[in-house]
Amino acid sequence: MDLVSIGMEKGLLYETVVTTVNDDGTSNAAPIGVICKDKDEIVVYLHQGSSTVKNIKRNNSFVVNILKDPMVFVESTLGDLPQNYFESHKNEFYIKNTDAYFIANVISLKDVEREDKFGVSVVTVVRAKVSDLIKTKEHVEPVNRAIYGIIEGLVYLTRMDMVSGDMEKLYRHRMSEISRIVNKVGGPEHKNAMKKISSAFSKYDK
Amino acid sequence: MDLVSIGMEKGLLYETVVTTVNDDGTSNAAPIGVICKDKDEIVVYLHQGSSTVKNIKRNNSFVVNILKDPMVFVESTLGDLPQNYFESHKNEFYIKNTDAYFIANVISLKDVEREDKFGVSVVTVVRAKVSDLIKTKEHVEPVNRAIYGIIEGLVYLTRMDMVSGDMEKLYRHRMSEISRIVNKVGGPEHKNAMKKISSAFSKYDK
Repeated sequence: MDLVSIGMEKGLLYETVVTTVNDDGTSNAAPIGVICKDKDEIVVYLHQGSSTVKNIKRNNSFVVNILKDPMVFVESTLGDLPQNYFESHKNEFYIKNTDAYFIANVISLKDVEREDKFGVSVVTVVRAKVSDLIKTKEHVEPVNRAIYGIIEGLVYLTRMDMVSGDMEKLYRHRMSEISRIVNKVGGPEHKNAMKKISSAFSKYDK
Repeated sequence: MDLVSIGMEKGLLYETVVTTVNDDGTSNAAPIGVICKDKDEIVVYLHQGSSTVKNIKRNNSFVVNILKDPMVFVESTLGDLPQNYFESHKNEFYIKNTDAYFIANVISLKDVEREDKFGVSVVTVVRAKVSDLIKTKEHVEPVNRAIYGIIEGLVYLTRMDMVSGDMEKLYRHRMSEISRIVNKVGGPEHKNAMKKISSAFSKYDK
């Protein structure tokens, strides 16, 4: 089984929860965007200083959980996903109620400086090979944000005639943010659709 | 087959494309949110003046297309989904490359006044019974925006320490919008997760 069997397409970014093993042998979980590079290869960008990046640097492997359970996303972000959510697989942990999971074995790992709107920061780029892919549901669909961005963009587009002032400013800001996200996480058909939305939106340019 | 077979859960709102028959016999398509009320019953809220509401009032039936093709959402919103996208089913039209579709037969239809941030408007509330449900893919998953809202909310939450001024104002506005959407379209587990996000977010209250 490869990433195609869990609905992952080359070039798209999926919202997952990554589980790693802490120094003391306990489990850690964090929401991470995973880019599908090939049917058995992924890339992740990790922020400096997190437990996830420390654990991956030490262990050279991690688990990617494909799931849609909202509470798992919330609790792993807030840092308190209880230990009883986890299950062991070989030397790793995965999340019990996940739709699918696989082990990611680090091929290369590189710290790079990146500049964004929040300033300059160091990001660790990890390339990894997929092994031990397990599905716990027959059909798995990973979370990709592109279609939601398209739909939200269309909502703003159709409301532009109704807004002004602060609200209009907000819509313009959201639209550029949506365009950025869709181009980051989507496939060619999403990018095409976004281009058409942006073009229709530009008729509201002053 | 009923709505359960295409992944619809009672109480959730799904993003679909509704196709109707115009007065002159041609096809019309528009993106519409469909609330699953029961395994064979839906409710939709339609804005006054659209071709969709006129066609439904005249024909007493419409087709709900379950799909994720971004261009179909874009072109049906911009009003120019070409006729070659449509296919006939009995007296109705559906969209050729849809993952699934069904006929919705109107049970009741009511014009109600509604007030929102854009002012007072008339909305037509349509309750309809499902028939002729057809799947063109083995596994169908309809688009529900709740998990996307949860993930976006978590992004804002983790960035609140980094923002100030206009950006902070924007994040606060988006967070209340996200909470509104998740509570409108999601199920109990989404609403619970959102409650936890809002509670963590409230520590940034001034």
